[in-house]
Amino acid sequence: MDPRLSLVSLGVRDVAASRRFYIDGLGWNPAFEVPGSVLFVQAAHGLLLAFWSVREMAEDALLDSEGGPSAAGRPAPVTLSHNVADAARVDEVLAEAQRAGATLIRPGAKQPWGGYSGYFADPDGFRWEVAWNPYLTVEDDGTVRLTTAESP
Amino acid sequence: MDPRLSLVSLGVRDVAASRRFYIDGLGWNPAFEVPGSVLFVQAAHGLLLAFWSVREMAEDALLDSEGGPSAAGRPAPVTLSHNVADAARVDEVLAEAQRAGATLIRPGAKQPWGGYSGYFADPDGFRWEVAWNPYLTVEDDGTVRLTTAESP
Repeated sequence: MDPRLSLVSLGVRDVAASRRFYIDGLGWNPAFEVPGSVLFVQAAHGLLLAFWSVREMAEDALLDSEGGPSAAGRPAPVTLSHNVADAARVDEVLAEAQRAGATLIRPGAKQPWGGYSGYFADPDGFRWEVAWNPYLTVEDDGTVRLTTAESP
Repeated sequence: MDPRLSLVSLGVRDVAASRRFYIDGLGWNPAFEVPGSVLFVQAAHGLLLAFWSVREMAEDALLDSEGGPSAAGRPAPVTLSHNVADAARVDEVLAEAQRAGATLIRPGAKQPWGGYSGYFADPDGFRWEVAWNPYLTVEDDGTVRLTTAESP
């Protein structure tokens, strides 16, 4: 596993409030959004920043499960995503992380959004998602294109 | 303020434990480190990821102060840094964020490490550090060089 971040997701209580602050207030442009669920902006070359309903995040990343407490006594409402080129590589990276001492939170599995992913936790419980996302591409200039199976 | 992340810092209980996992276990290379305090790795083009003593983070980012609770009822042990070209721009960005609805956590000030920075909180209390760091440069290929005033 190379030290490469593809996506940083922050768990937020109200995605519409995040939108008012970051999009309406600061004037940022959404890269992709599902109202009430998640809002993505591009935050660096090849990197997205997401404001994700913390309820959905908690369910997806099993924030209420074990996996090492954060300093606050529970995993932080944050996930770090590491994208890889295919589903097989997801399983390899999850195994590699476990050999390095990570806690497996969710094994690699096909996801409703069309990709394949799993989660591990670092020593502080921070969630890393390892994902193959066929609908996400990074162009040569670093622009991230995110679509869905239903997009034109 | 443009949507540009320069650094993502995770507050960890034991930097040595983070080092054992990420450096010894996963084989990542430190970009810069202060043993027991903070460990930086490069995580994308122009982006650093830091594992920072959560006690130092809490003190620096005033995690125990007001500024909007996270979903867990207190600010998450995470800071997002947005680096700018000079000290004056730090104050401009902090003012811009406040106009957009952010809570000012710490006004811009000279820092012991030689730069100038301040913090604001987003609607969920997530801390954004706005910083001018004369010891951090991003090369054309995206490599981040981080030194200190004492470095050769």
